[in-house]
Order: sequence, then C-alpha cells, then structure tokens
Amino acid sequence: MNFLEERIVKDGVVKEGNVLKVDSFLNHQMDINLLDMMGAEYKKRFAGKNINKILTIEASGIGIAAIVARHFNCPVVFAKKSKSINLEGEMYTAQVESFTHKNVNNVIVAKKFLTPEDHVLIIDDFLANGCALQGLIQIVNAAGATVEGIGIAIEKGFQPGGRMIRNMGYQLESLAIVDGMDAATGGITFRPQ
Amino acid sequence: MNFLEERIVKDGVVKEGNVLKVDSFLNHQMDINLLDMMGAEYKKRFAGKNINKILTIEASGIGIAAIVARHFNCPVVFAKKSKSINLEGEMYTAQVESFTHKNVNNVIVAKKFLTPEDHVLIIDDFLANGCALQGLIQIVNAAGATVEGIGIAIEKGFQPGGRMIRNMGYQLESLAIVDGMDAATGGITFRPQ
Repeated sequence: MNFLEERIVKDGVVKEGNVLKVDSFLNHQMDINLLDMMGAEYKKRFAGKNINKILTIEASGIGIAAIVARHFNCPVVFAKKSKSINLEGEMYTAQVESFTHKNVNNVIVAKKFLTPEDHVLIIDDFLANGCALQGLIQIVNAAGATVEGIGIAIEKGFQPGGRMIRNMGYQLESLAIVDGMDAATGGITFRPQ
Repeated sequence: MNFLEERIVKDGVVKEGNVLKVDSFLNHQMDINLLDMMGAEYKKRFAGKNINKILTIEASGIGIAAIVARHFNCPVVFAKKSKSINLEGEMYTAQVESFTHKNVNNVIVAKKFLTPEDHVLIIDDFLANGCALQGLIQIVNAAGATVEGIGIAIEKGFQPGGRMIRNMGYQLESLAIVDGMDAATGGITFRPQ
C-alpha cells in the first residue's frame, strides 16, 4: 500500500451506499503534509510533462490543487459551480451532475484564464462517475488548451468514471483506486498499482 | 505599499458597486507564490501565537488557507456552506449572509474537528461586512476553542466588518485595507499600515 492507501485504511470510514468518508484528512479537515506528499507523487508520475497550469473545481479540490501546484511551480485555476456577480466577462461553461449532491451545476471558468498555450494538469479529490472531470475536460478543450494529465486522490474503481477517462486516452493517475468497500466490516479493497 | 497592495494595483480591477476583482491572482486563478508570501507575512504578524489549526470557509478561502498552513505546520479545516450527504454526525452551524451572492448560507463544521484544545487562526480572502467571519468566530466559540487571530487578504475598510471585529478585541491582520475605490479612474486608496 502507498501512503494514501495506508491513510485511508487508518482514518477513512466506509458508510452505506458506497460512501467513503475521508473528511478528517482530505476534504473537510486537510492534512497539509499529506497533500504535499501527493504533490510530490504527481510530480513523479507526470515527469516530462510540460505542465504550466493546474485546473480544479470548487470546493474540495482547491486545497489539494494549491499544494500540488507548488511542485509544478504554476498557478491554479479553480472552476466555479455557480454564476457569481463577481465573475464577469466571457466564460467557458459545462454542465456537470454531482453524484454526491444529486444536482446539476454549471461549471464555469473565465476564458482569460485558459488559452491554447496552456498545458493543464486537472486535479480533484474524488473520481466516481467522472461527471465533474468530463466537464473540466470539456472546458480545457473548448479553450484549445491541452490536457496533459489528470491527478485524482481517490478513484472509486467500481464506478465507470476512471475507465471512460482512460478509454479516451488521457493519462489518469489516481493515487488510490478503491475496487470495493464493505460498510459492515469497514473493509476496503484497493486495486494493485 | 506592501507586496499584496502592489499586486492589487497591478492586476486588480475596480468595478461599479464597490467590487474589486482580483480573480487573476487570488480567487479564481491563484498565484501560489503570492499566497506563499502571504503565509510568511501572517507567520510574522502572528509570531508568538500558539496556532494549531487554521479555519476557513469554502470556496475561495481554501487555497489561501492551505498554503498559509505550511507556515504554521498545522491542518486546515474549511467550513462548508451547505449540508452535504457526506457530512454526517454532529455539526456546529452558523447562519451567514453573503454580500457577494446576496443569500444566506448555513456554515457548517463537524464538531470532531474543533475542540477546546484548538488555537485557531481564521483565514479568508475578503472582509467587507464581516458576516462570514462572524459565523466562523461563532463556531470557534461554540466549540470552546480559542480564536488566536484572523488573517484576511483584502479588507474593504469602508465597510463595517473590520471595525466590528477589532472592537471585539480580536487580532485582525488584513494585508491590504482598501479605504476607497473609484470605478471611473480605477484608483484604489489603501489605508497606511
């Protein structure tokens, strides 16, 4: 097991309905040292890629992306989920459906922050059905920018998002891929990497 | 002018209605090196404070808080703005009104992430009317934890939030305090620090 899988076993909680709670270290309380180790690991996995921008989506992707960006020495753009009065001008938009929140959001990125010159690493905490990720990819493509890779903390391997993204040829690096969870025993099965 | 004031003059945009857009470096695209300088500055301003946790609120506070936390070597907790199905258990809640979005949100922190042993630095990007901040202070107090200080990037000095917070005796450090803006000329007046 790698450092993230070990942490999931130690502090993650499996709930009914295929919910994996990692809110003590990843997406409510954030262990910054853990995020830093994730940044170092992505840097290794995307070695040789010419990444000049990190793209994520609010809210729980932002902290991870900010710490990861230190390893790539580049800015972070986070997509917004609803139109704010402070977000004017031309925007790229994509509709994404949230598995967690059971709703549909407009994902928005201001056009000036993604250009054909950008080589983008997409970062997010979870990948399940991949709807959020598909929206981000759609926005990068609409900008004429290049998706150099996708870094995910935890992929639910028993849901179709990861397979679809890999089938489209993207380099998708999920630091932990959960192939099964048992709420009764708390057991978690990771895909060997 | 300090480094943040200089950056605001260089890349900030003044809009009608007392809106200061800093989305190219602070709250849509984030300049991680700038956030790192902010972290170093807060570390200096809160020297001697025994801070073991940083509290912020989604979404635009999260990136700043994550980078600032490296300077204090402590975890970040970010308050959530709506009830998620993944956020179970006992929670502290406060109602806050958003000046930007013209709505009222429930701000939520899981009780297990704030305890009487916690010495908290609250971090956020903007302080105007102070509603979000008051909600965060209310939650820290409800937990029996201690507010050691409050670090803000940009305070709108012509709105009452900052004065109210200082009148309550909190150490509030705003790296840039805007006392006036002129949308016609783009001019920004900073309070001398």
